[in-house]
Amino acid sequence: MKQDLKLVIIGGVAAGPKAAARARRLLPNAEITVIDRSRWISYAGCGMPFFLDGQIDSFEELFNTAYDVIRDEGYFLREKDITVLTSTEALEVDRVKKSVLIRDLAGGEERWIPYDKLVLATGASPIIPPFEGRDLKGVYGLNNPGDLLRLMETVEDVNEAVVVGAGFIGMEVAGALSNRNILTTIVELREQLLPGVLDEDLAGVLKTRLESQGIDFALGQKVLRFEGENGRVSRVVTDQAVLDAEMVVMAVGVRPNIDLALKAGLEIGNTGAIRVDEYMLTSDPEIYACGDCAENVNILSGRHTYVPLASSANRQGRVVGDNTAGRRSKYNGILGTALLQVKNWNVGRTGLGEQQAQDYGYETKTAITPAHDRSHYHPQHSLVILKVIAEAGSGRLLGVQGIGPGSLDKRIDVAATAISFGATLDNIVDLDLGYAPPFNTTIDPLQHTANTLRNKNSGLIPMISPREVWDKLQRGDDFILLDVRTQREHDSKPMNDERVLHVIMGELRERIDSISRDKEIVVFCDLGIRSYEALRALKGAGFTKVRSMEGGMRLWAYGPVGML
Amino acid sequence: MKQDLKLVIIGGVAAGPKAAARARRLLPNAEITVIDRSRWISYAGCGMPFFLDGQIDSFEELFNTAYDVIRDEGYFLREKDITVLTSTEALEVDRVKKSVLIRDLAGGEERWIPYDKLVLATGASPIIPPFEGRDLKGVYGLNNPGDLLRLMETVEDVNEAVVVGAGFIGMEVAGALSNRNILTTIVELREQLLPGVLDEDLAGVLKTRLESQGIDFALGQKVLRFEGENGRVSRVVTDQAVLDAEMVVMAVGVRPNIDLALKAGLEIGNTGAIRVDEYMLTSDPEIYACGDCAENVNILSGRHTYVPLASSANRQGRVVGDNTAGRRSKYNGILGTALLQVKNWNVGRTGLGEQQAQDYGYETKTAITPAHDRSHYHPQHSLVILKVIAEAGSGRLLGVQGIGPGSLDKRIDVAATAISFGATLDNIVDLDLGYAPPFNTTIDPLQHTANTLRNKNSGLIPMISPREVWDKLQRGDDFILLDVRTQREHDSKPMNDERVLHVIMGELRERIDSISRDKEIVVFCDLGIRSYEALRALKGAGFTKVRSMEGGMRLWAYGPVGML
Repeated sequence: MKQDLKLVIIGGVAAGPKAAARARRLLPNAEITVIDRSRWISYAGCGMPFFLDGQIDSFEELFNTAYDVIRDEGYFLREKDITVLTSTEALEVDRVKKSVLIRDLAGGEERWIPYDKLVLATGASPIIPPFEGRDLKGVYGLNNPGDLLRLMETVEDVNEAVVVGAGFIGMEVAGALSNRNILTTIVELREQLLPGVLDEDLAGVLKTRLESQGIDFALGQKVLRFEGENGRVSRVVTDQAVLDAEMVVMAVGVRPNIDLALKAGLEIGNTGAIRVDEYMLTSDPEIYACGDCAENVNILSGRHTYVPLASSANRQGRVVGDNTAGRRSKYNGILGTALLQVKNWNVGRTGLGEQQAQDYGYETKTAITPAHDRSHYHPQHSLVILKVIAEAGSGRLLGVQGIGPGSLDKRIDVAATAISFGATLDNIVDLDLGYAPPFNTTIDPLQHTANTLRNKNSGLIPMISPREVWDKLQRGDDFILLDVRTQREHDSKPMNDERVLHVIMGELRERIDSISRDKEIVVFCDLGIRSYEALRALKGAGFTKVRSMEGGMRLWAYGPVGML
Repeated sequence: MKQDLKLVIIGGVAAGPKAAARARRLLPNAEITVIDRSRWISYAGCGMPFFLDGQIDSFEELFNTAYDVIRDEGYFLREKDITVLTSTEALEVDRVKKSVLIRDLAGGEERWIPYDKLVLATGASPIIPPFEGRDLKGVYGLNNPGDLLRLMETVEDVNEAVVVGAGFIGMEVAGALSNRNILTTIVELREQLLPGVLDEDLAGVLKTRLESQGIDFALGQKVLRFEGENGRVSRVVTDQAVLDAEMVVMAVGVRPNIDLALKAGLEIGNTGAIRVDEYMLTSDPEIYACGDCAENVNILSGRHTYVPLASSANRQGRVVGDNTAGRRSKYNGILGTALLQVKNWNVGRTGLGEQQAQDYGYETKTAITPAHDRSHYHPQHSLVILKVIAEAGSGRLLGVQGIGPGSLDKRIDVAATAISFGATLDNIVDLDLGYAPPFNTTIDPLQHTANTLRNKNSGLIPMISPREVWDKLQRGDDFILLDVRTQREHDSKPMNDERVLHVIMGELRERIDSISRDKEIVVFCDLGIRSYEALRALKGAGFTKVRSMEGGMRLWAYGPVGML
C-alpha cells in the first residue's frame, strides 16, 4: 500500500468527509485534503427542517458530533489529520498533470494542488426556475445552513407561507412551517403530492390527512410569478389562483453540480449526473465521484437513476474511501428507499411504485391495507397504511410504500431487505418477525398486506378501490353500499348516501336474508377486515355480486367524510 | 371442496381461534366448534404485563377487537358463525370413530362430538416446581386472565416482590412491578438473565442498566422454599439469600399441554411437544396441532425446538385454517425471533446466539456496537446496542441480538429477514435502508455493526472486550488504558484507575509522542468509534500493541462506573 498517497476531495458536506475519514483509517500517512466552496462543512442538511420547526433548538447541533464537538476545519485536522480548505473553490482539473486549480474565495489567490486520487463530491444545487419576482425579499431556498439562517430571521413574523414543490424538501418544510402555526400552502405542478415517491392512491389519502391538519395544497398548478410590496413578497400567482404569502420557500428539486466534471471531460450520464461504475469510479481511473453529484443504479430496474439522498451519499463515501486506499469495494446501487415525516405522518417507500413497475414492463398486482402498528390495546398503537406491489405471475415483491402516524420505517426497511433478495409474497408471509405488544401485532402489517394480496389473487376477496366506489356514487350507480361498522363508528364518520345500508357485523348473519340478492353490493368497514368477513358470509349465503372496499374508511379520501 | 365439514378445535386462546376464523372464511358452510376448558377465550395474553403496570387501564381491552367488541362466545357465533364451548374440557379423542369426548365443567355432562378434521391448540401450562410454601397466599403465576385478576387484587398493597425466573414472562412481570414502584428481585437458577435469549455479554450489560432502575437480580440462585406468616408469603429462601417478599410471581417456564395427544397415541417430539410436519399435521392425517402445544423447527439449525410464542401461534393457526379447508399451506418454521420490553429497555434477538451457533458446529465471529437509533441531533434519538454473530469464513449472518431504550425492533426484523435469505455481512452493508433524521442514522446501526465486524475480520481494528479489560484491571496487568473521551464524558463517568491515561481525541495526534510505545495500550471512548479512530492514528504512528475496547463505556458493566 502506497502510504504517501495524495488524496484530494472536492466537497465537504456528506460523501466527501465520509470518503476522507474512511481513507484516513486505511491510510494513516496519506495526505488528505478536502476542499469546499462554502464555509459550511460536514453539516446535517437533513436536520434543517427540524431546526426550522423548533424540534432542534441549537443551530450548532447540526454541526456537532455525537460527543458535542463541532465538525469544523480544526476538528478534521486534530481528530483525523485531514486538511479542510473552506471558502475555496475548485476551478479546474488537469487530468494529465493530476492537479486541481483552486481559488481562495476570500483572498482571491489561485494555486494548483496535485493529487494521486481525486474524489468529486460536489453535491447538488437547487433548481431555481426563472419566476418573475424570485429576487423579492422573503423568497428562500433551503439548501444549506446559510439558507436556514436567512429563513429563521423572518419566520417568527410570518402568518402565511407558500412552498413551491411537493417533493421531499417541500413537504418537510411545509410540515415544519405548519408546526409553527403558519398557514402553509404547497404549490405543485403535478397533480399529486410527492410525485415519483408515492403512488397516486396513497398520495391522495395523505393529502386529505394533512389538509385536516392545516396544510393546503394547490396541485396541478403552475407558478407564474411572485408579487410583492416594497421589495418584499406578498403573493404567489399561479395559473389558477393568487395565494397570499409573506414567505415563499422554493423546493422544486436539485440538479447535480457537474461543471467541474464536464470541464474535465468526464463522462456524464443520461440522468445529467456524473457517470460512475460499480466502484464509484468516473471515466478517469484516478477520479471517483460520490454523493449528490453522481448517478445511481436502481437494483430492480438495472437502470441509471438520479436520487440524491444522504444515506446513499454516506454509503458511497465509504466505498470511495476504500477504493482510494486500494481496496476493491463495490457499491451495489439503490432500491429507491426513502423516508420522510410531515407533521405527525410518516411516509416511506422502497422498490418500484405501481406505475413505475408497469413502465418497466411488469404486470402488477397490488393491495393496500390500513393496520395497527402494534397491539391495539397498547397505549402507543397507531395506524400504518401499506401498499404492496408484486409481479402478477411470480408474486415477486417489486415495491412497498406506506403512510401513517405509526411505525412505518420498520416495515419499509423489512421490505427493502426482502426485495434485495428477490422475495415473493409467500416469503414475506413466512418471515419470522418479532412480536410483543409494544412493537407489533401478532401478524405484522406487511405480512397482513401480503396475505391480503394473496387473498385477492386467489379470488377469495374481490375488491373495489375507494376511488371506484366514489366514482360509482358520483355516477349515480344503483348498488348497495353495505356498512358493517359498529354504531359508534357509523355515527362518528357517517357515509351519507341513500344507497348505504348499515348492518353491524354482529347482526349481518341473522339479517342476511333481508338484504337484496339482486343488487350489486359493496361492503365496507373501518380497516377492511370486517368487510372481508362480511363478504365471505355473503358469498357463503349465495350472494354473487359482492365486493369489499379496499382499506375501508381509513383509505377514504373523498367527500366530506373519512377524515382521520 | 366439502362444504359441510365438521371442524373441531380444542383450545380457544390464540392459534385455535385463528385457525377457526381462517377456516370459516374458506368454508362458509363448515360446522366449526371451538372447545376451551377455561371461561377465558381469545384473550391477549401478551398484554397482561401491560395491564399489571397500569399502561392498559381496562381489563376488557385484553378481550376486545380493535373495534371495541368483546371476543366472547356470542361474538364468535354472531360474527363468524363459530360455536365456542367454554368451561368445557376435551377428555379423550377417538381417532377411529373421529370423535371427541367433552365434559361441561359446570354441569358435568359428557358427550361425544364428531369431527372430520380436528385441531389441537391446547396451549401450555406453567411449570410449578414443588417448592415448599408454594400454596401460601401471595404466590402467583401469570398464565391467564384469572391469574392476572388475582394478582391485581393485592398488587396495590405490595412493597417488595420476588419474581422467580428471568425468562420472558419473569422479566416482563418484574418490569411491570418495578414500574409500580415495587422493590422487585428476580431469582434465576442460571448465572444470567434471559438465558437462551441473550448472550452472556449483552445480558450482563442489561442487568446493570436494570439494576440502576431499581430491579435486583439474584442470579445463579436456587429457590429452596417460600416462607410466610398467617398463610401469607413473606420471604423467599434461596440457597444463598433470604429475600423479603409480600408477593411472589412464579415464571419458570411453561410446558406444552399434551395429555390429550398422548392419550390419543399421537407422536410427541423429543422437545416434549406434539410433533407436526410442515403442514402442521400430527401423526394422524386428520389431526392438526398448532400454537404452544406444538413443536417448531428452527430454520437455521433444521432442528426441532419448543418456542411457544404468540406470533408463531398466529401464523400456525392461519396455516392450519388453510389446510383443514383443503389447501396445502406450509409453515416454514422459526428463526427464534423474539422481542420484549423491560422498563424502558427493549430486548430483541433473532437467529442463533453465539454459544448456540458454536453448539451447532459453526465457527463464529462477532461484533457488538452501541449506536444511536436516529440522528443524534433529533430530540427522540436513543441508544441501541447490537451484537452480530456471523459464520467465520463465509461471513454469513447467523444471529443478531440487541438491547437498548432505542428503536431495536426494526433492526431485529431486518436481521430476521436477511437471515431468512442467507445474507452475508456484505449483503447487510449493501442494503438500501431508509434514512431521515426521525428514523435512522445515515448508516443504520445494523450496517454499522456489520461494518465493524468486517473491520475486525480484516485486522483493521484489533479489539478487546470490556470483560477482558476488567479482568486485566483486576489481575493487575501493566498496560495503558487510554481514555480518548471529552473532558465532560470523562468527568461524568470516570474510570478510576492509575493505569488510565486521559487524552481527548482532539489532542491525541499532537500528544502522540508523549505516550509510551513500550506498553500495551487499550483505547476506549463512549461508543467505540473514536477509540477506533485513535487506534488507527496510533497504528499509523507505529504503535504496535494497541487494541480498542469493544463498544466503549456503553458496554461497560463492571465496577462502580459505566451506569447509564
